[in-house]
Amino acid sequence: MEVTRTLARYVVSSDLKDIPEAVQKEATRSIVNWLGCAVGGCRHETIDRAFEALGQFSGKPEATLMGRGEKLDIFVTALLNGISSHVFDFDDTHLKTIIHPAGPIASALFALAEHMPITGADLLHAFILGVEVECRIGNAVYPEHYDVGWHITGTAGVFGAAAAVGKILTLDEQQMVWALGIAGTQSSGFREMFGTMCKSFHPGRAAQNGMLAAFLAQKNFTSSDQVLEAKRGFANVMSTQRNYDEITENLGQSFEVALNTYKPFACGIVIHPSIDGGIQLKKELNLTGDEIEKVELKVAPLVLELTGKKTPQTGLEGKFSVYHSLAVAIIHGAAGENEYSDACVRDPKVIALRDKVEAVIDSTMRDDEARVTVTCKDGRVLEKHVPHAIGSLERPMSNDDIEAKFNGLVREILDEEKTSNLLALAWSVANLEDASEICRASVP
Amino acid sequence: MEVTRTLARYVVSSDLKDIPEAVQKEATRSIVNWLGCAVGGCRHETIDRAFEALGQFSGKPEATLMGRGEKLDIFVTALLNGISSHVFDFDDTHLKTIIHPAGPIASALFALAEHMPITGADLLHAFILGVEVECRIGNAVYPEHYDVGWHITGTAGVFGAAAAVGKILTLDEQQMVWALGIAGTQSSGFREMFGTMCKSFHPGRAAQNGMLAAFLAQKNFTSSDQVLEAKRGFANVMSTQRNYDEITENLGQSFEVALNTYKPFACGIVIHPSIDGGIQLKKELNLTGDEIEKVELKVAPLVLELTGKKTPQTGLEGKFSVYHSLAVAIIHGAAGENEYSDACVRDPKVIALRDKVEAVIDSTMRDDEARVTVTCKDGRVLEKHVPHAIGSLERPMSNDDIEAKFNGLVREILDEEKTSNLLALAWSVANLEDASEICRASVP
Repeated sequence: MEVTRTLARYVVSSDLKDIPEAVQKEATRSIVNWLGCAVGGCRHETIDRAFEALGQFSGKPEATLMGRGEKLDIFVTALLNGISSHVFDFDDTHLKTIIHPAGPIASALFALAEHMPITGADLLHAFILGVEVECRIGNAVYPEHYDVGWHITGTAGVFGAAAAVGKILTLDEQQMVWALGIAGTQSSGFREMFGTMCKSFHPGRAAQNGMLAAFLAQKNFTSSDQVLEAKRGFANVMSTQRNYDEITENLGQSFEVALNTYKPFACGIVIHPSIDGGIQLKKELNLTGDEIEKVELKVAPLVLELTGKKTPQTGLEGKFSVYHSLAVAIIHGAAGENEYSDACVRDPKVIALRDKVEAVIDSTMRDDEARVTVTCKDGRVLEKHVPHAIGSLERPMSNDDIEAKFNGLVREILDEEKTSNLLALAWSVANLEDASEICRASVP
Repeated sequence: MEVTRTLARYVVSSDLKDIPEAVQKEATRSIVNWLGCAVGGCRHETIDRAFEALGQFSGKPEATLMGRGEKLDIFVTALLNGISSHVFDFDDTHLKTIIHPAGPIASALFALAEHMPITGADLLHAFILGVEVECRIGNAVYPEHYDVGWHITGTAGVFGAAAAVGKILTLDEQQMVWALGIAGTQSSGFREMFGTMCKSFHPGRAAQNGMLAAFLAQKNFTSSDQVLEAKRGFANVMSTQRNYDEITENLGQSFEVALNTYKPFACGIVIHPSIDGGIQLKKELNLTGDEIEKVELKVAPLVLELTGKKTPQTGLEGKFSVYHSLAVAIIHGAAGENEYSDACVRDPKVIALRDKVEAVIDSTMRDDEARVTVTCKDGRVLEKHVPHAIGSLERPMSNDDIEAKFNGLVREILDEEKTSNLLALAWSVANLEDASEICRASVP
């Protein structure tokens, strides 16, 4: 079985009209969500430092840093927009593999759209194919590949970016095989980097390196024909298990982007059911936090393992504290970037409620489940069971939810009119004559 | 034990005056050898295709493509010179790890020297440290890391390039730790790529990516503090065994560049003893090939496993044929790029002698040993036993040998005067006020 060639052949021969409308709609939602994250994150110091280091070496300033407006060459722009879209840990999640699919693909495609004309429909099509490639490759090696220590968004994302850019460059089958090969031999990124600026570097580099692979393949820069399945190729070298059927079966029939999900809250996904419960209680009962005597929280074991930090000192640490997260959910009814600022984590009112939260493990609970019980000073006991958190496949974000998230992120950067204009463009990406209109509209 | 920090601290604190003169001399020989390979390989189609794909996106044209003269930004130049220096498989070898040490380090440093003034002494110092870092990291995980399927010149080289460039950028200890971290999370390159253009892409990318890491670290782009030793860091994720003492012991006392070797012949190292024997017989007895009835060759098992191709059709295939290689050694007294051209492989005179070679395995022989027995038509039987091939640690290339190799490579590109001028500059690198003089002198 020629795994790499089968996948390459599918990408090269795919036609947008054969992709169901529901899949195209989910891809559009993914792009809207990606754009909100990329614009919202653009002023983070991670991007500032990378820009300071690399901007001076940029080539022809063709492509826009989303939300900022500086122009750099398409490779550096793909890197920086990729960093920006992941820096808040707020982007999309393919739950089967915990790949964040959009970053590597969209960051490359939108940069490319300022180098050569790309219609919105072609961009959407290439985006769907890029996500298909990265997630199928992820499916074939997950979870063992991730368990080894690889940050799968980087390691699988580079293939997706190569495929997406290669589709726009109209590579032939052999060139697409080489593009995947050149991408694969750059596949990299350790989970050890979590908690440092290198985490968001990974999707950015995946975008940049995948694009590099496609441009090299276009000039017949050769590579292995079997990067995925060879004895010393990706799946054997970088994973302890592999299932190639995940890559080659039902191509053109099933679509991984249809399984994409979007985070409602700006933190690790295991805290989401707790926050969801807190926000629901606040809304139903108009809680302010002052009336509360104590909060009991029951969660799955993984929640405390990953986010059991009791006394976070910084915004970033707050993202790893289910205590802080539940407190802001009840006080502010939200858990966006504002609720993970240093100031919010140090707010005495938040600290007071956080210290009243008692979390206990219930090993019968799923990771996306939580039970929040609030005891008020007046004796009332209020309880909320969340069987599946908002943002899960069982309770997907509605388009309105995605818009609200987009607005919350983008209004930190753009005024209301520009925010609403950018959002309208993103929803209508499939109909744009020139997809790069979105890049220009992202600038204050 | 802080492995990464210990290594970073050594690099940051190292002083050239504490490095023995013999080590500096070996580093100079490594640079001369690297330069010959980079200039000699510069017109290979691998570089042409990469240039065609990427040249259009280059930033400020500061740095010279060795031997060609086009100028590109320092990152693309580091990539292309790195490809060029490895494309003939003729560069240096650290036999303990089969890393080709110079490519990732020198390709980055010479590109950098055209961006900022670097004295030859500083460049030599940074080169020694870069080789130290990549080879020590290689020592810690070899051979298991290589056995997994990683092309160690790429995977370890990126650390060395980061350390070398970081030394020139005068990073502080924490920044050097981050530079190694950013380098490590880009570590990549499959052995599956051998035989394709991606093989020489690896040292080129190691140079480029390591330089990227150093420039990011200079702006305090953060990374893990333990990229080498962390549970999910380089040594655990990318190897099945590891020995951190290889990285941390005797720093500043032993020097890996002192163990560097140089290939006399433009093919895989296991054929070298056979070629050596053939050339010695030719020289001693003025053989032309016509007088020969048959040739018997005894070699170690690995030789026929790797290079047992009896009827090569192309120059590249000739490099994997001990039969062709022994024939050209006897006919031409050489085994350089010319002897691995398509024309030479198809030369009827070469084919006739090649078909008279009988190779047999002698499992008592070492890999760098061979016995060549020639039976002439007039009944004479001539024998040559090569216990260690020229170019091995036991029989190192002399400076004259290295010069002859340099001249053979560079004269394809430069006229005699320029070749001799470039060679003189390379030997005196330690005394140059401006190391980039070498880049400019490499141009026809």
